[in-house]
Amino acid sequence: MISRRDLLLAPLLAPLAANVWAAGIRFERQPRTAFAIASPQGDAPLWVDPQDHKGVARVAADLAADVARVTGRAAPPVGSRGSAARRVIVIGSLDRSPLVQDLVQRGKLDVSGVAGRWEAYVVQTVAQPFPGVDEALVIAGADKRGTIYGCYDLSRSMGVSPWFWWADVPVTQRNEIWLDRGRRVQRSPAVKYRGIFLNNEAPCLSGWTAEKFGGMNAGFYTKVFELLLRLRANYLWPAMWNNAFVDDDPQNAVLADEYGIVMGTSHHEPMNRAHKEFTSRREQLGNGQWNYVSNRPAIREFFREGAARSKQHELLVTLGMRGDGDVALEGTGGLQSDIRLLEDVIADQRQLLVEQTGRRIEDIPQVWVLFTEVLKYYDGGLKLPPDVTLMFSDDNVGYLRRLPTAQERASRTGGFGIYHHMDMNGGPYSYKWTNTNPLPKMWEQLNQALLRGADRIWISNVGDLKPLELPIEFFLAMAWDPASVGPDKLQAWTEAWAEREFGAAHAREVASLVAAYAKANAWRKPEQLRPETYSLEHHDEAPRMAAYWQGLQRRAEAVNAQLAPAQQAAYYQLVLHPIRACANLNEMLLAAARNQRFARQGRASTNDEAARVRQLFAASRRIRDTYNHELSGGKWNHLMDQTYLGYFDWFQPVADVPPPVTELDLADDARFGVCVEGSALSWPGYYLPPALPAFDGLLRGEHWFEVFPRGRRALQVEVTADQPWIQWRRVPAFSAGAGDQRYAVAIDWARVPEGAASGSLTVSDGTERVRIAVTLAVATAQQRQDARGAWGSLGAAFSIPASGFERQTEAEGVRWQALPDYGRVDVALTPWPANARSFADPRRAPRLAYPIYVARAGDYTVDLITAPTLRVDPGHQLGVALWVDEGQPVVKHVFTPEEREAQEFLGRIHDINARTDMRVMKFRLRIDTAGRHLLHVGMIDPGLVLQQILVYRDRLPPSYFGPTPQRIA
Amino acid sequence: MISRRDLLLAPLLAPLAANVWAAGIRFERQPRTAFAIASPQGDAPLWVDPQDHKGVARVAADLAADVARVTGRAAPPVGSRGSAARRVIVIGSLDRSPLVQDLVQRGKLDVSGVAGRWEAYVVQTVAQPFPGVDEALVIAGADKRGTIYGCYDLSRSMGVSPWFWWADVPVTQRNEIWLDRGRRVQRSPAVKYRGIFLNNEAPCLSGWTAEKFGGMNAGFYTKVFELLLRLRANYLWPAMWNNAFVDDDPQNAVLADEYGIVMGTSHHEPMNRAHKEFTSRREQLGNGQWNYVSNRPAIREFFREGAARSKQHELLVTLGMRGDGDVALEGTGGLQSDIRLLEDVIADQRQLLVEQTGRRIEDIPQVWVLFTEVLKYYDGGLKLPPDVTLMFSDDNVGYLRRLPTAQERASRTGGFGIYHHMDMNGGPYSYKWTNTNPLPKMWEQLNQALLRGADRIWISNVGDLKPLELPIEFFLAMAWDPASVGPDKLQAWTEAWAEREFGAAHAREVASLVAAYAKANAWRKPEQLRPETYSLEHHDEAPRMAAYWQGLQRRAEAVNAQLAPAQQAAYYQLVLHPIRACANLNEMLLAAARNQRFARQGRASTNDEAARVRQLFAASRRIRDTYNHELSGGKWNHLMDQTYLGYFDWFQPVADVPPPVTELDLADDARFGVCVEGSALSWPGYYLPPALPAFDGLLRGEHWFEVFPRGRRALQVEVTADQPWIQWRRVPAFSAGAGDQRYAVAIDWARVPEGAASGSLTVSDGTERVRIAVTLAVATAQQRQDARGAWGSLGAAFSIPASGFERQTEAEGVRWQALPDYGRVDVALTPWPANARSFADPRRAPRLAYPIYVARAGDYTVDLITAPTLRVDPGHQLGVALWVDEGQPVVKHVFTPEEREAQEFLGRIHDINARTDMRVMKFRLRIDTAGRHLLHVGMIDPGLVLQQILVYRDRLPPSYFGPTPQRIA
Repeated sequence: MISRRDLLLAPLLAPLAANVWAAGIRFERQPRTAFAIASPQGDAPLWVDPQDHKGVARVAADLAADVARVTGRAAPPVGSRGSAARRVIVIGSLDRSPLVQDLVQRGKLDVSGVAGRWEAYVVQTVAQPFPGVDEALVIAGADKRGTIYGCYDLSRSMGVSPWFWWADVPVTQRNEIWLDRGRRVQRSPAVKYRGIFLNNEAPCLSGWTAEKFGGMNAGFYTKVFELLLRLRANYLWPAMWNNAFVDDDPQNAVLADEYGIVMGTSHHEPMNRAHKEFTSRREQLGNGQWNYVSNRPAIREFFREGAARSKQHELLVTLGMRGDGDVALEGTGGLQSDIRLLEDVIADQRQLLVEQTGRRIEDIPQVWVLFTEVLKYYDGGLKLPPDVTLMFSDDNVGYLRRLPTAQERASRTGGFGIYHHMDMNGGPYSYKWTNTNPLPKMWEQLNQALLRGADRIWISNVGDLKPLELPIEFFLAMAWDPASVGPDKLQAWTEAWAEREFGAAHAREVASLVAAYAKANAWRKPEQLRPETYSLEHHDEAPRMAAYWQGLQRRAEAVNAQLAPAQQAAYYQLVLHPIRACANLNEMLLAAARNQRFARQGRASTNDEAARVRQLFAASRRIRDTYNHELSGGKWNHLMDQTYLGYFDWFQPVADVPPPVTELDLADDARFGVCVEGSALSWPGYYLPPALPAFDGLLRGEHWFEVFPRGRRALQVEVTADQPWIQWRRVPAFSAGAGDQRYAVAIDWARVPEGAASGSLTVSDGTERVRIAVTLAVATAQQRQDARGAWGSLGAAFSIPASGFERQTEAEGVRWQALPDYGRVDVALTPWPANARSFADPRRAPRLAYPIYVARAGDYTVDLITAPTLRVDPGHQLGVALWVDEGQPVVKHVFTPEEREAQEFLGRIHDINARTDMRVMKFRLRIDTAGRHLLHVGMIDPGLVLQQILVYRDRLPPSYFGPTPQRIA
Repeated sequence: MISRRDLLLAPLLAPLAANVWAAGIRFERQPRTAFAIASPQGDAPLWVDPQDHKGVARVAADLAADVARVTGRAAPPVGSRGSAARRVIVIGSLDRSPLVQDLVQRGKLDVSGVAGRWEAYVVQTVAQPFPGVDEALVIAGADKRGTIYGCYDLSRSMGVSPWFWWADVPVTQRNEIWLDRGRRVQRSPAVKYRGIFLNNEAPCLSGWTAEKFGGMNAGFYTKVFELLLRLRANYLWPAMWNNAFVDDDPQNAVLADEYGIVMGTSHHEPMNRAHKEFTSRREQLGNGQWNYVSNRPAIREFFREGAARSKQHELLVTLGMRGDGDVALEGTGGLQSDIRLLEDVIADQRQLLVEQTGRRIEDIPQVWVLFTEVLKYYDGGLKLPPDVTLMFSDDNVGYLRRLPTAQERASRTGGFGIYHHMDMNGGPYSYKWTNTNPLPKMWEQLNQALLRGADRIWISNVGDLKPLELPIEFFLAMAWDPASVGPDKLQAWTEAWAEREFGAAHAREVASLVAAYAKANAWRKPEQLRPETYSLEHHDEAPRMAAYWQGLQRRAEAVNAQLAPAQQAAYYQLVLHPIRACANLNEMLLAAARNQRFARQGRASTNDEAARVRQLFAASRRIRDTYNHELSGGKWNHLMDQTYLGYFDWFQPVADVPPPVTELDLADDARFGVCVEGSALSWPGYYLPPALPAFDGLLRGEHWFEVFPRGRRALQVEVTADQPWIQWRRVPAFSAGAGDQRYAVAIDWARVPEGAASGSLTVSDGTERVRIAVTLAVATAQQRQDARGAWGSLGAAFSIPASGFERQTEAEGVRWQALPDYGRVDVALTPWPANARSFADPRRAPRLAYPIYVARAGDYTVDLITAPTLRVDPGHQLGVALWVDEGQPVVKHVFTPEEREAQEFLGRIHDINARTDMRVMKFRLRIDTAGRHLLHVGMIDPGLVLQQILVYRDRLPPSYFGPTPQRIA
């Protein structure tokens, strides 16, 4: 079994976004070897040529301000060539700045490997660059954004977090900032257009911008532009719920262009126009219908005005058309006629673009987004000109539905993009409240996109932007430099992020905390949690979940207590709030679950649980209010306005509805009740007698029962056993009731005589007696020897972690790769490389062999728990094979013609998988003899992510996670 | 349409149990024409021959005590012939009393039509019966019980309720009791053995008997025996949950025989022995297993001891065997081998009976009960000797599963019986709390039993006996004299009962109240009610249900206020408790339903509903405690201990669990929300806009919307409409929140201009506006004329009551008979006579024609709502046919081979039907033209009970009862 530690023995220091500056920055005086960016002896002024892009002068001012943020002194002056200085920072774009062009011409600046390369830049110290200047630090971009990224990368390396304003991350004060002399080149990014989509923006973002900026105007958007550039993004879909970017503030579009942000419009808003621009003047637009059949002239005119915008600004034009608002196209009656109509729409749109810009259509970047129902037009044969970027979508919960095939890649000059979600308002369900995006899951899917050539545009729906700071930065980092992150580098990346935001002392712990909360939030998104989600009866699932969150919160609070006061606002936003809020939510729902369960059991503590739910709901209000009202003097008010409790369909609830609770009318007596592991029932009070789950002589685990008051008076019970080998001890009850008692029961196997298989425990208060049956499955010495080190049991369902194999066999350079910290497990496994070819014969494919032990021959059900990945390659069906020993492999495919509809986006099974964030593949396997065997898992198709294997004969006790894996000792 | 009033124009005065005394008793002096039973001038002494049955002397003492109860004087003496008196009451059995035999021999007493007839008796005044005696009133039974019934019938006619002790019914004081002279003969009862089964007796009956009697001993049982005899029953299955009648008190069996009660044992306890007699001495009985294969010698010996009891006492021997306790037989591996085993068991049992009693087996009454799984052995071909009574069972909720066929009747000398339930602990669900047995439902099924010859034994499971006083009396009355009750006489019977218990002034009202509460309790038994049972959205169902119970309670409280204090204890037990308790329960569940609904809507009054639920739960405790602790000084303590709230499977909950409730965190604002009829949603807050259900130009009904506060502050809203023909007015909101407003919306059809079909209402508080769409289906003048008097609509689903036919056509003397006050309707219809033959061609069968109107041609779904009656006759499948105009009849059968398993006892559909107390038969009918049509219902098989017909095109709005029937005006 691979442990996480093994995998991480040699972590690379993963830069947050491969940063050429990072290694050269020093915060002490280094006059012999380094250039002084800032020093008490004088901060270097910044030179920008007046002819350069406006955005370059603007970023230079930001850089000067960032220097001041670090030094605490006045910002160094930003001027142009000639302003007096012995030491200057020269900032300029190779395509526009005479200042740097001059340096190049004079051989002072080497731009090889940079000039002409999209968004690349060079950083070079130059001695005697100009007369009267001793030394210059030159930051020269191949283009405008190259220069801008060069400046912001320096800011980041000086210790100014891209989130310094957006998450109140404090800047560490330094007297000196030096850069080792030399030349550094930042190459072009892996993904050409990298951006975010502000969406689903009510109530939070809209409420916050209204209060703080007076709307989604340039005051707000320049904050977004700056953040994007600091994160090396270049692309934005603006908010469009009752917002129109261009209309809402005339400066919005102007400043976007000036800052250097390529504006787009969302998947359903073609031709550079917000849908609201249509709806708000519908009366003047023909018959007012958003329908290209009935209202073509008016809509064409509407498109024409949009096309003209591409002349003025750097835009990425969304093509196509959906229905009126973010809904499906109104059909013309048949798929083929809809396709013809869409082809007409796109042809008209392209013609308008050429007309209005006077440019060749190939020089105008365009995108067509296959969102939701739109994919079917493409699958149905719609002919899209090859220069248009084809953007595939995920399933709204982060799993890509489709990626380009080799054939598609060969013919499409416009390339491919992906539309990804970290926030959703719609089917299969909405999640808008907090961060539920674990990085390993994002990485696995984004890596698929890159390997399969979807690298022209990446955009992610980020909801209100906050509180998705971490996954946004990861998404953009991976879009820039995927090599710097990988399945074994995610922890290092997260630690680097944590170190930048909160310092080295807490980096490891903070990284672990943010990974752990997001991972649990993906097991089941908070909006989809219900009191009954986790099992109270089986595998101690509910208490373990409670302990998980309590543990996280305890650790998170401990870090908080050690942080400087100035760090705490950022820490609350980035770490503490999601952990506190989600721990509170889980605890509240578990208390509600116990309330309902205990009510059935007639427990006095039913009422304590009701009180606990009310208390925790009140706490949830305080946790929210701290974010909205107390943090940074109320700076983030409304950004935690999102409701998340009480979803009854995909639409967000109008109010947070805490789980309902029951209170019993308790008698003034001391009656007791008993419940046992594995059952929701209670005794006295049921016609079938209580029995503990059978004790397994191989697993040798414990089981429990609880004794509780049913009346208002305290318990006076005695527990006795009728066999000397039955042992029991008090452990904490999973209850808010102080009077509830839990007893862990264990078997002293050494004392169990030959042939004994049952006994009982009796709980008595002198009047009433409850006898609990204790049954054993005793293992023979031979069985114990045979089973040692295997996964199995004498009868109970058992679980095997993906990493629990005994042997892995590669085939033709393909193997199963460990994905640490993935999904429901410590380590998941997936065929590697992720775009490997399929294998027809699983016995010759990359395969895993797991040692298992079963005490009876017969038919077993084997549930393969995989990630709910989709069929990104239409050429395969996501198959995998299982077999025992030398038996015949049983091959199963996910996307069979029969199951395809249910498994695919918004199908019946997709809906279940999206909620559980897993897929169950059921196999029936015959095991011919009792004893030890090898269970083989053989690859068929890439893309399958194996997490866990459940094996059982008759019945799998209902639970969310299944049995806890336990290797037989 | 038949109204209930029409059906009841000529009510017969239905005696409670056809009583020969009733018409002759007078409470004023009538010396010329009547015999003075009691008079201030001297109460007649009672003469019983010492050689008569002991039970006759005992009943004479009861009769004397009853005279005293009426007169308030000392009881008249009970003696034997020769005690000095001029006027005596002679009591004796023709088979044992020399006293009456002497009168017969001397020609003084005419016993023609009585002597030798089972339980018959004669009452005759005899002048100069003996020397020195002027006149005798002779009560002479053909046998012991004939005499006993004669006495108790007199008591009842004097005004002593059979329930005087069991329900504290006060006896009206009279100075004089006279009987018109003459001869009266009470014939034998219709059913030979009539009895009850005390069952499911914890916690109530067991707790009460423990406290009041110290157990289920003779002190308790003699109270039961007396009650049974006063109700003219003769048969008892004693309590058997941890009780053993013979063991628990040696006097139990002795006194039963002395009183005249034929003891039996329950369906699963063969050979006169309680199962507890086995379990309590299991260790001494072979291997201790209740298994005729593995432990035959011991069980045979156990049976032998039971057989001996039939020698000593009058017993009705239960034969056969089930599993260990009241569960299914442990199978031997196959149905046929199980059958052979059971045949062996029965053969052995019969042999033991002959051996132990020395009697012919034909002279020992025996019964084999086809309970639950046992029926399958009979259906599988088990050969039962013809002298054994075969007892069929109901489905545990009052519907008989099977009745004898003509062929079976011809061959079985032992005849047939039925095992009926008015209380159940088991599948399909338990109902143990209150009376849920409407008499019309009982009558319909019991009438089937009689008509089909199941008249040898009737036994009903009555739970704890209380509070089932009324259905018990009805069951026994019908078993005695079914002619006195009938579909059109049930109201009169109930009024007579109410008059006896509470006096003539309240009889009609009390009868109406007890019928109404039991009827509603059968719509859905209280244990099966859930907050979501009744629709909050459609047909005003939930408010109508609330109003129903509130109305009943108001009326019940009004009667209570008018009763004399001495009557109130009886009234609480028989009338007020079930109404108060069930009204409270319904109100609590509806408040809980609103709480959950309102939470989703973000209503401030969510919290008021939570408070209301808590308040009503507390009230439910007081209602229960009044019964247990306050009534008659605590006489009935524990008889209301039964839990009824919180069932999660068939087993009774360990504690009453009130419905869970939610409380919202309200903001300090005045935001408002809107909800509309037909939807659970609320606005602002949903992406689809609100719309009232379409207004139908034929039905011209109203629809509603509600406006409610979402914050803590009061509403300030204005409602406006954009059309002059939209009218609205405030009506009470269905809410516990004082700030919630409901508006009824109506259309002023006269003002709707040609072609208008839509408008809107707007609710606004000046800031927020909600626009509610109003759509119309406008009827043309022609449509209105065509539709007048029909059932139908312009589009909405509609409902037709069974009684809403235009024409009924009889066939061969068979017709559809009205069953007033049946099921979900005022009047149901069933083929008549109830055992009529089946018809093959529905167009020539008894049929009904309903006028309907539809505005569109097309396919319609027609749901026939029937009673969930079962296939009592295996020769038919419970078919019925529907057709439109002269179209082809569509025939449907309930018990098709495909559906049989699901429809039959404990099948999937039976489970649903048992909970809803109905069956839905779905038809698809094509209606070729818009306009008026006749919908025909044609009989196929008897036994089907038609209640209602629902007609709809696409969708039936989900509700419990469907649309309210409305004839087009």
